[in-house]
Amino acid sequence: MSRFFSNKFDKLEPYVPGEQPKDVKYIKLNTNESPFAPSSAVIRAAELEASRLQLYSDPDVQDICDAIAGLYGVSPDEVLPSNGSDETLNFAFMAFCDKNNPICFPDISYGFYPVFAEFNNIPYEEIPLKEDFSIDYRDYCGKGKNIVIANPNAPTGMALPLWQIEEIIKSNPDNIVIIDEAYVDFGAQSAVGLIKKYDNLIVIQTFSKSRSMAGARLGYAVACKDIINDLNTVRFSTNPYNVNRMTIACGAAAISDNDYYMSNCKTIAETREYTKKALEDMNFEVLPSKANFLFARSRNIGGKLLYEKLKQNGILIRHFEKERIKDYNRITIGTKEQMETFLDTVKKILEDNI
Amino acid sequence: MSRFFSNKFDKLEPYVPGEQPKDVKYIKLNTNESPFAPSSAVIRAAELEASRLQLYSDPDVQDICDAIAGLYGVSPDEVLPSNGSDETLNFAFMAFCDKNNPICFPDISYGFYPVFAEFNNIPYEEIPLKEDFSIDYRDYCGKGKNIVIANPNAPTGMALPLWQIEEIIKSNPDNIVIIDEAYVDFGAQSAVGLIKKYDNLIVIQTFSKSRSMAGARLGYAVACKDIINDLNTVRFSTNPYNVNRMTIACGAAAISDNDYYMSNCKTIAETREYTKKALEDMNFEVLPSKANFLFARSRNIGGKLLYEKLKQNGILIRHFEKERIKDYNRITIGTKEQMETFLDTVKKILEDNI
Repeated sequence: MSRFFSNKFDKLEPYVPGEQPKDVKYIKLNTNESPFAPSSAVIRAAELEASRLQLYSDPDVQDICDAIAGLYGVSPDEVLPSNGSDETLNFAFMAFCDKNNPICFPDISYGFYPVFAEFNNIPYEEIPLKEDFSIDYRDYCGKGKNIVIANPNAPTGMALPLWQIEEIIKSNPDNIVIIDEAYVDFGAQSAVGLIKKYDNLIVIQTFSKSRSMAGARLGYAVACKDIINDLNTVRFSTNPYNVNRMTIACGAAAISDNDYYMSNCKTIAETREYTKKALEDMNFEVLPSKANFLFARSRNIGGKLLYEKLKQNGILIRHFEKERIKDYNRITIGTKEQMETFLDTVKKILEDNI
Repeated sequence: MSRFFSNKFDKLEPYVPGEQPKDVKYIKLNTNESPFAPSSAVIRAAELEASRLQLYSDPDVQDICDAIAGLYGVSPDEVLPSNGSDETLNFAFMAFCDKNNPICFPDISYGFYPVFAEFNNIPYEEIPLKEDFSIDYRDYCGKGKNIVIANPNAPTGMALPLWQIEEIIKSNPDNIVIIDEAYVDFGAQSAVGLIKKYDNLIVIQTFSKSRSMAGARLGYAVACKDIINDLNTVRFSTNPYNVNRMTIACGAAAISDNDYYMSNCKTIAETREYTKKALEDMNFEVLPSKANFLFARSRNIGGKLLYEKLKQNGILIRHFEKERIKDYNRITIGTKEQMETFLDTVKKILEDNI
C-alpha cells in the first residue's frame, strides 16, 4: 500500500478471482466457463469489427440493447449493457445503496457482494442459508432493505422458483431487489418478465457462461426505464465507452445464434446430471444444481485435499476455504469427455486415499 | 430518475461524450480518433483471440503490462491496464482522493475531471488557465492538493515542457500528481521516465489516439509499484476482468508494431501544422497544439455557427458551449484529404457568411 491510499479503504479486501494459470495446460473446471467455443458468427463479427478499431465504440451500445430487447420482449431503454456483469452489479450498488440504504444477501453466495458493499461503504447484512444450503425466501420478504440474490445461487447451484422471487420483490416495494441471473440459462426460471410489473426489480445477466463469451466481457441489466436511466447516470460518470466495439459486435452475433447457445446449455445440463449421479455413486453429497456447476462434498476425502490432488493431476476445480463450505468444492461442468476424465481421476484419488 | 436513486448523486452531471451519429456518414473530426486503421497485426490478433472467447481474460493483463514495460523501460508491476484510460482516471480519483484529500485541475481541461470528483464526493478546485489558455505551472507548485493535468491539455492542445511538470511533482511530495498523457505521442514530452524518481507520480496513457484503438478500450497507468498496487486494489474490488481477451491481444500486437503507429503520429503532426497555417490564412486564431487536434477561433464567424454549418455539410467538429471557449472549436486532425475537404468547406462557409 502506498502512503497516499485513502483510509476509507482500510478494511477493504478485494475479490479474488479463480486461478487462471499460465504455466500448465489444465482441464479448467474452476471458473464456470463454457466448454464450447463461440459460434462462427461471433468469430466473424470480431474479425470484421477489428478493422474499425480506430473509431470509438457506440456509447449507447444500441446493438446490444436492441438484441436483448428482442430476445426478452422488453424495450431497448430497459436494458443497460456493461463490461461484464460485475460492472453492472457495482453500478447498482453505487446507484441505489448508501449508508442510509443498506443491502442484504445470503451469507454463502457470490463473493463479490460483500466486496462491492465494503468498497462503496454500504452497510450490509449476510443472511444465513438454511442447513441444506437453500435460500428461505421468507427471510427476504418485507425485509425493508435492498436485496441481491443470485438465482441460481453460487457456489451452491440451487435455484428459487419464480413465485418465491416474486414474493420477495412484491413485499419490498420501497427497496431495490437485484436478481443476479448469471447462471439462469442452465435450468432456472428468469425474472426478466417481471420488470414490466415491478419498478424495484433489476435482473442482471451475462454472456460469460451460457453464451461462451467470458473473455469478451459483456453483461447487462434489465429493469424499468427509470432504473436504467439511473444506472446510465453512473455509467456516464465513470466510463461511458464501457463496452468495446468487438464485444458489441460479438454480443449481437451471439444473440442472432441463440439456438446454438441454448442447445449448448441443454447439453451442459445433461452432463451436469450425469456427473451428479456419478459423484453420488462415489459417496459424494451433491447439491441439486440448476447452474453449469456442481457443489459437492466427498464423504471420504476433505474438500481442500481433493482440490489439491486434482490439481496435481491437471484438473482445476474451485475450493473455498470458508468455514461452512470447506468440505465442498465447486466443479464446473465441461464437456462429457472432460467430466469422464474428472470422474476417473476422482475415482483414482479416492482409491489411493483409502 | 427513479425514486430509488441515492441522494448522494443529487448534484451529479454525467460526462457528455462527443456525438457518435449513426444516421449519416460524416467526416468525423469531433472525438480525436485516429484517421488510420489499426495495423494488420492487430486485426490478426483479434481474429485469433475471438475463437477463445469462452475463457476468461487474464485478470493480471500480463501481456499488456509486459509490452508497456518493454516500451518504456519500466517494470511490469509498475503498469496498470484498464478498460480505456477513463477507468484508470476514475480508479486514481477513488484511490487517492476523498473529502480530506481534495484535487485540483485547470478550469478548461478534460471535462471528465469534475465529473469524477463530483461522483466520488471529492472537493475540487478549478484553477483558471492564463489569458492565452496556457497552464502556469507555478499555480500548481507547492499546492498541497492532489493534482491532475492533461499534457498536452485538451481542448487547447497546449503542452507544458517536462521540466515544468517535474517542478509540479517535486514541489508536492505529499500529494498525488496525475499527468494524463492521452495525446502525448503527437509531440509533447512524456513524464513516464520520472516514475522511478517520484513515488507521487501517476502517468496515464491510452491506445485510443496514437494507436488507433479507441474502439478497443485500452488505457494504462504507469507509476511506482505501491501506487499500482493501490490501483489494483480498486480494480479487484470493482471489476477484476476489466480488459477483454481481444483487446489484450490487439494491444500487445500494437506495441509490436510501434513504428507504424509512431509514423502515423508524425504524419498527423505534419497535417496539424499544415491545417493550422491554412486556418490562420483564413483569419482564424489557432492555439499552438502538440496534440492530434487544433483549438481554433474564427474572427469572422461564431464557434457554434461554424460547428452547425460544418455539420450541415457533413463534417463534425467539437463545440463546447462554455463561456470562456464558446468562440472556439476543437478540430481533430484527420487525413490530409479530410483536412482539405474541411478547409474547403470552411472557406465556402466563410464566403457565404459575408
